[in-house]
Amino acid sequence: MGIVNALRCRECKQEYEPTLKYICDECLGPLDVTYDYGSIKVSRDTFANREKSYWRYFELLPIAEKANIVSLEAGFTPLHRADRLADALGLRAGNLYLKNDSVNPTFSFKDRPAGVAVSKAREMGLKAVGCASTGNLASATAAHAAKADLPCYIFAPKDIEYAKIAQALAYGAEFIAVDGTYDDANRIAAQISDAKPIGIVNVNLRPYYVEGSKTLAYEVVEQLNWKVPDHLIVPVASGAMLNAICRGLEELYELNLVDGIDNVKVTAAQAKGCSPIVEAFKGNRDEIVPVEYPNTIAKSLAIGDPGDGIYALRRLRQFNGYAEDPDDDEIRDAILLLARYEGIFTEPAGGVAVASLKRLVEDGRIDKDEHVVCYITGNGLKSIDAIEGLLRKPRIVKPNYMDVVEMISIAGT
Amino acid sequence: MGIVNALRCRECKQEYEPTLKYICDECLGPLDVTYDYGSIKVSRDTFANREKSYWRYFELLPIAEKANIVSLEAGFTPLHRADRLADALGLRAGNLYLKNDSVNPTFSFKDRPAGVAVSKAREMGLKAVGCASTGNLASATAAHAAKADLPCYIFAPKDIEYAKIAQALAYGAEFIAVDGTYDDANRIAAQISDAKPIGIVNVNLRPYYVEGSKTLAYEVVEQLNWKVPDHLIVPVASGAMLNAICRGLEELYELNLVDGIDNVKVTAAQAKGCSPIVEAFKGNRDEIVPVEYPNTIAKSLAIGDPGDGIYALRRLRQFNGYAEDPDDDEIRDAILLLARYEGIFTEPAGGVAVASLKRLVEDGRIDKDEHVVCYITGNGLKSIDAIEGLLRKPRIVKPNYMDVVEMISIAGT
Repeated sequence: MGIVNALRCRECKQEYEPTLKYICDECLGPLDVTYDYGSIKVSRDTFANREKSYWRYFELLPIAEKANIVSLEAGFTPLHRADRLADALGLRAGNLYLKNDSVNPTFSFKDRPAGVAVSKAREMGLKAVGCASTGNLASATAAHAAKADLPCYIFAPKDIEYAKIAQALAYGAEFIAVDGTYDDANRIAAQISDAKPIGIVNVNLRPYYVEGSKTLAYEVVEQLNWKVPDHLIVPVASGAMLNAICRGLEELYELNLVDGIDNVKVTAAQAKGCSPIVEAFKGNRDEIVPVEYPNTIAKSLAIGDPGDGIYALRRLRQFNGYAEDPDDDEIRDAILLLARYEGIFTEPAGGVAVASLKRLVEDGRIDKDEHVVCYITGNGLKSIDAIEGLLRKPRIVKPNYMDVVEMISIAGT
Repeated sequence: MGIVNALRCRECKQEYEPTLKYICDECLGPLDVTYDYGSIKVSRDTFANREKSYWRYFELLPIAEKANIVSLEAGFTPLHRADRLADALGLRAGNLYLKNDSVNPTFSFKDRPAGVAVSKAREMGLKAVGCASTGNLASATAAHAAKADLPCYIFAPKDIEYAKIAQALAYGAEFIAVDGTYDDANRIAAQISDAKPIGIVNVNLRPYYVEGSKTLAYEVVEQLNWKVPDHLIVPVASGAMLNAICRGLEELYELNLVDGIDNVKVTAAQAKGCSPIVEAFKGNRDEIVPVEYPNTIAKSLAIGDPGDGIYALRRLRQFNGYAEDPDDDEIRDAILLLARYEGIFTEPAGGVAVASLKRLVEDGRIDKDEHVVCYITGNGLKSIDAIEGLLRKPRIVKPNYMDVVEMISIAGT
């Protein structure tokens, strides 16, 4: 199992015992889990016949005892070959893949970090869990808490999509709807985690939590027969997922599972109404200027003050990527493009990724020989309102054959 | 690949060329695909390293050329070990599994039959597809049609859940909302398929379509290391899925992949507001009396005149099963039971299955040593209205720590 050596400060490298700690005492930097990579004996064959979930990579996840794993069988989602979309965008068949995380158990990629964090909460003997959420994490945390028989507290802005609230409530979570932004909800969750013996998955369990998202890198590479793609398009909110994907790539190299990662580009996709990381990248700045009032249909990406923003920014530079910020109209169009060409129905975050890809292709920043993977991180059923205005209306008819047959016209007949 | 020998009448055994035909000229019985099982060379090892979708069983699916497969990577969904639910119901840990088809690409089991039927439409060179639908099939057909670049016509009653309509529209389907019941929509679809060169997946493509649902039996058995469970609980609408699961079991035996299927029981679950098959079973009748006006929250099961009803009924007797018909309150409670104990969020059809299981356990009709598999066929995000009244409301608070901290009470602290 994944034996955690220590928590290490990402900035000053100070090390700590692996507890609920998440901020460095010395410099206030974020803490990351470290492993003794030399003791991890894995090869490509290790994984070949393992379970079809992200727990197949348990040596690289921070849970010491298998009995503590809380699994809903998330992960190992389809890597969907997108030839129709490639053709529509002007890319070559076989060169575009979509990592379809809309089919996770709670219908977003958040089952990865939430499942790891709730497992860690069980391993630590905590009696309650919770999260600060833009919506998807609420359901992922609540469902894993249900499976683990732990009470769960959700802190979220009150204007998130109702489907996401209802889903989290169905799993039995206590839903605290903050009359403010995600950043307000996150601040309150942090204060609660200081005051109460609760594991807030993306606050005091954050060093463990972020490890779950590394599996988005492992799986893509394994599903491509251990080939590293040339370009990853990653939707970004806090920046944690993008950073974790990059860390996952580095680990694959560290463990000799791939030959090299020097040629892979990593690109960030944010929505125009909340794009602090993209702004900093395009402005060639090292600092993130928070967005006070996010305003976009991509609510799951609407984090104005991204916790891992500066690290995501460094990763974009390290991996020679780009940053794009399509507007709401581009996002809506991309949702429908994806649905109509590939049969994948995503929430706006996935639309942000596809719209950014479209921009890169149109600007000639993606070479036709590049192998591109675009991450589709959430499910369209959670945000139907976002596209409602663009859909044709159903045609309502009386149940008479003659009325209906005139509506059917088939080309070439 | 799956080489279809013929279409054979389920009643009089008359055989026909494998075309778009679906009703026997002699006796009006339904037609089924037949294969030359002797020529199918498969063993358990054949499947071990195959793709993680139901297409891993392509020798047993009616598509001759791999190039014609239209795949969204559906199937091979988790077989979820449900120890918490087992405990809550009074079953033994390790004896209850849930086949979680809510995580298919369009979020219901219908991706199985629809994907096979749209592939067959491509193989036959058809220029359009469609379906009669209670909702889930609309999206499954529309998404596969999108991937196949075929126009798609949906015929459905106008009162189905809006999420299902919106999803099908997002994939680009033409949605014809019939002001009537599912049976009206189905009748019109059948008339259209007689008049136009269109493949209606569950009408004139039905012999191929139903083959997709056999994979619900194959996968469960393979995921249990080729052990046949003792009892299957199957939600039932038209009866086609239950019949296909039973056929799948018979094929596994025919092909020597399992030692025997004599001890497996198959139980049907319908909602009280539309339970013609359960009524016939409980009344010990051989005929199905159609329900003229279905009235249940389980809209995806609301088929008043089930096309495969008498065959489902025969299967229940062949496989020594039961039939149950929980009411809407039981269904709602079961949805929440499943969500709160296992972290799986299902639509009412899954609630019907779990509520029926609960009845069987309470009545002592499930032995504590039995290995039970319950089929969860669809996704709760499509029918949030069904449980809305039972959910606690989110607690809306100002973003002040002091207001929030009083809401958090953790046991034992």
